[in-house]
Amino acid sequence: MTDITPVLARADENLPSSLDKLFELLRIKSISTDPAFKGECRKGAEWLTDYLGTLGFDASVRDTPGHPMVVAHHAGASADAPHLLFYGHYDVQPVDPIELWENDPFEPAIKDVGNGRKILTGRGTADDKGQLMTFVEACRAYKDVVGSLPCRITILFEGEEESGSPSLKPFLEANADELRADYALVCDTSMWDRDTPAVASALRGLVGEEIVVSAADRDLHSGLFGGAAANPIHILTSILAGLHDETGRITLDGFYDGVEETPENVKASWETLGTTAESFLGEVGLSIPSGEKGRSVLELTWARPTAEINGIWGGYTGEGFKTVIAAKASAKVSFRLVGTQDPAAIRESFRAYVRSNIPGDCSVEFHPHGGSPAIHLAYDSPALTKAKTALSDEWPKPAVVIGMGGSIPIVGDFQKMLGMESLLVGFGLSDDRIHSPNEKYELTSYHKGIRSWIRILEALAK
Amino acid sequence: MTDITPVLARADENLPSSLDKLFELLRIKSISTDPAFKGECRKGAEWLTDYLGTLGFDASVRDTPGHPMVVAHHAGASADAPHLLFYGHYDVQPVDPIELWENDPFEPAIKDVGNGRKILTGRGTADDKGQLMTFVEACRAYKDVVGSLPCRITILFEGEEESGSPSLKPFLEANADELRADYALVCDTSMWDRDTPAVASALRGLVGEEIVVSAADRDLHSGLFGGAAANPIHILTSILAGLHDETGRITLDGFYDGVEETPENVKASWETLGTTAESFLGEVGLSIPSGEKGRSVLELTWARPTAEINGIWGGYTGEGFKTVIAAKASAKVSFRLVGTQDPAAIRESFRAYVRSNIPGDCSVEFHPHGGSPAIHLAYDSPALTKAKTALSDEWPKPAVVIGMGGSIPIVGDFQKMLGMESLLVGFGLSDDRIHSPNEKYELTSYHKGIRSWIRILEALAK
Repeated sequence: MTDITPVLARADENLPSSLDKLFELLRIKSISTDPAFKGECRKGAEWLTDYLGTLGFDASVRDTPGHPMVVAHHAGASADAPHLLFYGHYDVQPVDPIELWENDPFEPAIKDVGNGRKILTGRGTADDKGQLMTFVEACRAYKDVVGSLPCRITILFEGEEESGSPSLKPFLEANADELRADYALVCDTSMWDRDTPAVASALRGLVGEEIVVSAADRDLHSGLFGGAAANPIHILTSILAGLHDETGRITLDGFYDGVEETPENVKASWETLGTTAESFLGEVGLSIPSGEKGRSVLELTWARPTAEINGIWGGYTGEGFKTVIAAKASAKVSFRLVGTQDPAAIRESFRAYVRSNIPGDCSVEFHPHGGSPAIHLAYDSPALTKAKTALSDEWPKPAVVIGMGGSIPIVGDFQKMLGMESLLVGFGLSDDRIHSPNEKYELTSYHKGIRSWIRILEALAK
Repeated sequence: MTDITPVLARADENLPSSLDKLFELLRIKSISTDPAFKGECRKGAEWLTDYLGTLGFDASVRDTPGHPMVVAHHAGASADAPHLLFYGHYDVQPVDPIELWENDPFEPAIKDVGNGRKILTGRGTADDKGQLMTFVEACRAYKDVVGSLPCRITILFEGEEESGSPSLKPFLEANADELRADYALVCDTSMWDRDTPAVASALRGLVGEEIVVSAADRDLHSGLFGGAAANPIHILTSILAGLHDETGRITLDGFYDGVEETPENVKASWETLGTTAESFLGEVGLSIPSGEKGRSVLELTWARPTAEINGIWGGYTGEGFKTVIAAKASAKVSFRLVGTQDPAAIRESFRAYVRSNIPGDCSVEFHPHGGSPAIHLAYDSPALTKAKTALSDEWPKPAVVIGMGGSIPIVGDFQKMLGMESLLVGFGLSDDRIHSPNEKYELTSYHKGIRSWIRILEALAK
């Protein structure tokens, strides 16, 4: 076990040059989605490879059919410590509309915004160059003080995250043995708030289905046929209305198989966050939770499955009125999954339910979209507990374990293809304006982020 | 009472010149919706006025802010006979797509289609120039033989029926005393089939409502908010699904007030028409009646009220998938009314039902469209019975009294503004392709149509 006090002190001393190194990386215009910046993307990969080399990593640029990956290995000081795979991405979003930026997006700066707060401005500061550099600079402080790292580390930096990661799965597959570790660290998420660090332990899965209900072989006049001919919009609305019962539970057969109740201590910790239905929904003009009755909004969005209609259309939708009975009606429906809910089983249950409600002279088509299970790091996993304690030691408030309602595909890929769980820790804030003009990252996020990784690596090494 | 045998014989003799007169009218390109044909519309009105003048009518072109009306009066031979208002329209639909016409739409022709059938081709042959000329030529035969008409007749020909009749109501209002009669004859409907004439005795009314359900003040990410934030598409589908119970009845409070059961003898006469669910719905690819259980398709479409969703839209409706929770969802809903159902009461009942199902943090807007009561000529009215007998004497099969699922606004206007019921008799067939390329009218419809009016006028005069 290392005394990390001098490592933390070294990180503090390094901060000016840590910022210099970050700014070098930020100046590289690695916009992955725009072919005009292909060379810049390669330059980003090369810069990282070179820099990791100076920190004792065996680093290389690895070609793909798209933008290259960076893979780097460090053996670490102890064979008993776990092997960790750190993931981040060096590509960034486009900068349009450029006229809305207050500063050149590729000329990073430090801005004093008053009240002692400083921010780093520029494209990629928060998503994800600033975040991935917190880890790199933590490694640098270790190297400077200890000469090695407390764990065996493999780093994977991707250059296509902002353009759909087309090369990622084939690369993981082709290099599975090289990349497989005990678990992954992913630094692409946010804190709970400015003072409260967070570890995300759960991501909901997703099943999408488009359904098309067909009745008559043409649009009908509702005067001539109304009351006798099947109306596919009626059929569709009845089907969709039947997805929930009056308590907000989803009615599909077997839907809750694999859904477990959130442990009381986890729910209790969420309650301490102070999020109420009013505060959570008030931001978007609402106030009454709509889902399962008797559960908090955090539980509803982090730990409970859902069925949502994302789109619906049929019949006449223009100005005025047309008394038509449509031939077809369509909807896009998605299910967010938790626990061990099986996407294939849920898709089949939904289809069976729909089919059982289609009249004998009508028909239905299904078009699948997506199908990924929930990701779940056990609330009591040792790694999660260690990371939580390490973060709590660094920040003003204790770390919280949060769920995430959305999905991060890489986490599913690591689990499915490499059999590896992920620990999601990040230092972004909800107002960082990622993907938008005037993206920023708090100087505190960068500085304390570096210090946080030093603590986490030390904790995980034990 | 006149012996009509010579009048009918005269109509037969007149047929070649009756066709010449119709063809003169058909050559006038009176497309009311296209300003380029404004002069042609006036020409149509003038042609009719001149021609009616030659038949002993006091006829005039009457200006409106749009296309002119034709109003013509004939005192008739007997002060004891009823005063009748005959309505038709001289304007026609556009002819696009012109390339699908086999003949010039404004160069009418007689075509032999085999099996002894001849058809008149061209725009307006069936809708409505051919139909209105059946009445005019019946008057001509009377004038030729008797020198007068058996009833006092007022004729109203409109030139804006195909473009929404903007001038009609103000014209009826301004000329109510001149136009009010004992009842109206409207010749703009169809026969039951080639051999079976029909009198339409009921038209359903219509109430339309567009509803917009609003939830959050912006579109939300279903990962972040799904399960907690209200989804307006869910709310809307639940509301719409609740409009019908499991027997197909509409659930709104008071909805069936004013709906009476169809008399058994009327239902029995409909049964003799031989229409089955399979024959009626089979034409459009369906087979199972969708509305109230235990009623025939003719009863469902002619004599029962309905609630139909004519359009629905909300959320993401493009290619692929977007896991959005929409801010708004909308639908267009219409109710077909029968009997004495009150459009205003039904609109209010619907709105109250919708409002009671909107969560406290969401809102709903309503946009009314239309609102007309059902029109209903008593099944046992003397005029209807007389017309039925007269038609039965002319055609191979006895006339049937039918309902019409749709609406003909003029009929409601006559009732509301002039306190006058309408008798709807027409000689179109369902394959006349009105509003489409290659519109036609059967030569038999024209010839026997003229003869039918001779018989009807005689019958009504008694």
